[in-house]
Amino acid sequence: MEPSVDKPIYLDHAATTSVDERVLAAMLPYFSVEYGNPSSLYQLGQRARRGIDEARDQIAGILGVARRELIFTSGGTESNNLLIFGVAEVMQPHGRHIILSSIEHDSVLEPVRHLEERGFEVSLLPVGEDGLVEPADLAAALRPDTILVSILYANNEIGTIQPIRELAEVVKKFRADQPPASAGRPPLLPYFHTDACQAAPYLSLKVEELGVDAMTLNGGKIYGPKGVGVLYLREGVKLMPQSWGGGQEYRIRAGTENVPGIVGMGLALELVQAVREEESARLIPLRDRLIEGLLKIPETRLNGHPTRRLPNNVNVSFRGLEGETILMRLDMLNIAASSGSACSSGSLDPSHVIRALGLEHEWSHSSTRFSFGHGSSDEEVSFVLKHLPGVIRELRELSPF
Amino acid sequence: MEPSVDKPIYLDHAATTSVDERVLAAMLPYFSVEYGNPSSLYQLGQRARRGIDEARDQIAGILGVARRELIFTSGGTESNNLLIFGVAEVMQPHGRHIILSSIEHDSVLEPVRHLEERGFEVSLLPVGEDGLVEPADLAAALRPDTILVSILYANNEIGTIQPIRELAEVVKKFRADQPPASAGRPPLLPYFHTDACQAAPYLSLKVEELGVDAMTLNGGKIYGPKGVGVLYLREGVKLMPQSWGGGQEYRIRAGTENVPGIVGMGLALELVQAVREEESARLIPLRDRLIEGLLKIPETRLNGHPTRRLPNNVNVSFRGLEGETILMRLDMLNIAASSGSACSSGSLDPSHVIRALGLEHEWSHSSTRFSFGHGSSDEEVSFVLKHLPGVIRELRELSPF
Repeated sequence: MEPSVDKPIYLDHAATTSVDERVLAAMLPYFSVEYGNPSSLYQLGQRARRGIDEARDQIAGILGVARRELIFTSGGTESNNLLIFGVAEVMQPHGRHIILSSIEHDSVLEPVRHLEERGFEVSLLPVGEDGLVEPADLAAALRPDTILVSILYANNEIGTIQPIRELAEVVKKFRADQPPASAGRPPLLPYFHTDACQAAPYLSLKVEELGVDAMTLNGGKIYGPKGVGVLYLREGVKLMPQSWGGGQEYRIRAGTENVPGIVGMGLALELVQAVREEESARLIPLRDRLIEGLLKIPETRLNGHPTRRLPNNVNVSFRGLEGETILMRLDMLNIAASSGSACSSGSLDPSHVIRALGLEHEWSHSSTRFSFGHGSSDEEVSFVLKHLPGVIRELRELSPF
Repeated sequence: MEPSVDKPIYLDHAATTSVDERVLAAMLPYFSVEYGNPSSLYQLGQRARRGIDEARDQIAGILGVARRELIFTSGGTESNNLLIFGVAEVMQPHGRHIILSSIEHDSVLEPVRHLEERGFEVSLLPVGEDGLVEPADLAAALRPDTILVSILYANNEIGTIQPIRELAEVVKKFRADQPPASAGRPPLLPYFHTDACQAAPYLSLKVEELGVDAMTLNGGKIYGPKGVGVLYLREGVKLMPQSWGGGQEYRIRAGTENVPGIVGMGLALELVQAVREEESARLIPLRDRLIEGLLKIPETRLNGHPTRRLPNNVNVSFRGLEGETILMRLDMLNIAASSGSACSSGSLDPSHVIRALGLEHEWSHSSTRFSFGHGSSDEEVSFVLKHLPGVIRELRELSPF
């Protein structure tokens, strides 16, 4: 069927994805049949426990890590908060300095800002107009009192993929250059964490290749359920639990496990990673065709790196317009897209990510993100390219600028 | 059908419940059809937003509170942790003293113990052999620097129902007797919180009747989904968010909402509260028949109050035995029951709840909980009463004591 105004075109997979029907099917028994509490000793509880164990095995296989290094949480935001507050609480005797890129997700930036109010120091690494962090900038920012470096694997708004391996090498070299065991300093400090929520459907998550010590994943971006996430913690990484009251998740994250969610998360990650290369190969031409077409609209620019970007991400600005207005018009065409990040919608200020790119005001307010996924097609790209130029022209005619 | 060894008898509803089929049906569309991010402006996102709004309305109606006073979380443990750490962080300039009963759930006790390590002081109110907290003990424990009182509405292990209204009156009287606005002290301090997770299927949750300032609920004990909970916060109660990074839940709890879970939580609470009086009337005779029958086994005692207990809770000790051994034998009969609380299973020590009742060692190790629910029947009680006396007799013959 041809796309039309009556058929929704979902181009906001970076905000959230639908649950894959195979994932939902795997989850279903755990609601009303295998509903036992996994901490219970009887068979019904132990079958729920096995569901969790299998999900942990699936994820451990994808990441190439041990089961024991994976903590299930309620989502990416909790994983990031747990990592940051947990490391800060335990490691502050060794230092109170944290390094982030200036385009981290709010669930990394905001906890760290909260720590700043408690006396921690933060270095925000600049990014170029393409959104890339320079390894040399990281090297220059590292200090003996740095306890944590956190850099987004692939940015949620502009899709720029960071050189995580090179950045990890910088951290490892810095660690190796420190005086041995100075003042009882744990050998793994500073920890290197990456939020891989956006990267998970398209990039390798092999921890040894990436060289990270901690990694955040969630269900709602990978055709899995919302309300579940993972925090990978390399053996030897120490943090203080932020949720107390039960022995679950190796005593790091208390609370009866969300069994259906966990089961769904495990399968979703396995499914999405199994097709990541072919999906990338399929989506890159769609992405590039949409970019090329959009850039034909006068006074339009691409945000982020032209090639080192997620296969599913297109982010453009239309000079002089407001992103929200564009979204509303797209919604009338039944096209779901995003301006800034979904989490900060409601505000008309450009997001900190767009601001960090150094765009002038007349560009920064109109950033618009289209993010592809499993259902995305060439016909959808054609539909957008057929209608959007007219929308932009019309809005510009109405615009006071 | 008659119960038999082949048909599971689930008597552990206090550990967790199956999801009601109507609840699951209400959740299903939000996985793969109405899967939008509720923070998104387009129609798909706004329909997910409406699902959350309706759930909030359902819960607000049951509690008799404003929408704005309800925060969705990932479960009872997170609600309790958020309340305790959040209040401690904001209110410590006004005092660092917290009062709990000695039989709180671990998700209240453990965060408070963690605060003790940071210099907070804790008063644990004793309970009688029946598990009841005396209002006079609370009155005696309150101090000008008390910032929080948290007392379980109904205990998860022994089912004892606390006199929450009377305890709330004690707190209110104490507040009224304080010098007006001394040192800028907020008028609502100390806050009075109750964990109502176990009470929710059987007791009134009307906040004005109870007189509490904060209340914890979760999905997994009320035929709703695991992985979702609620924290009620009376208008004027201030706490510091413990999860940062998005504007969700009135900026108190960041993270993309677990939409299906929230939708399920709202309906589950509505359904379970709609039948709470008739279910109570149905279960109390079952409960009392099981208690009566079990007490005919030699050297058996009831733990908790004989009448001021949850309609679904039976907790007994069999002198000289180990609870875990009894559970294993029950599991062979396909009867699911619990010893201590499910969360602390794996430890052979008696739980802090059983210890707080002051039982001697030979009683405290064998506490066994049977908790009824929607599917529980007279036939199931008969089945337990037919088989358990023999099991106990046999175990005592094998026992070294």
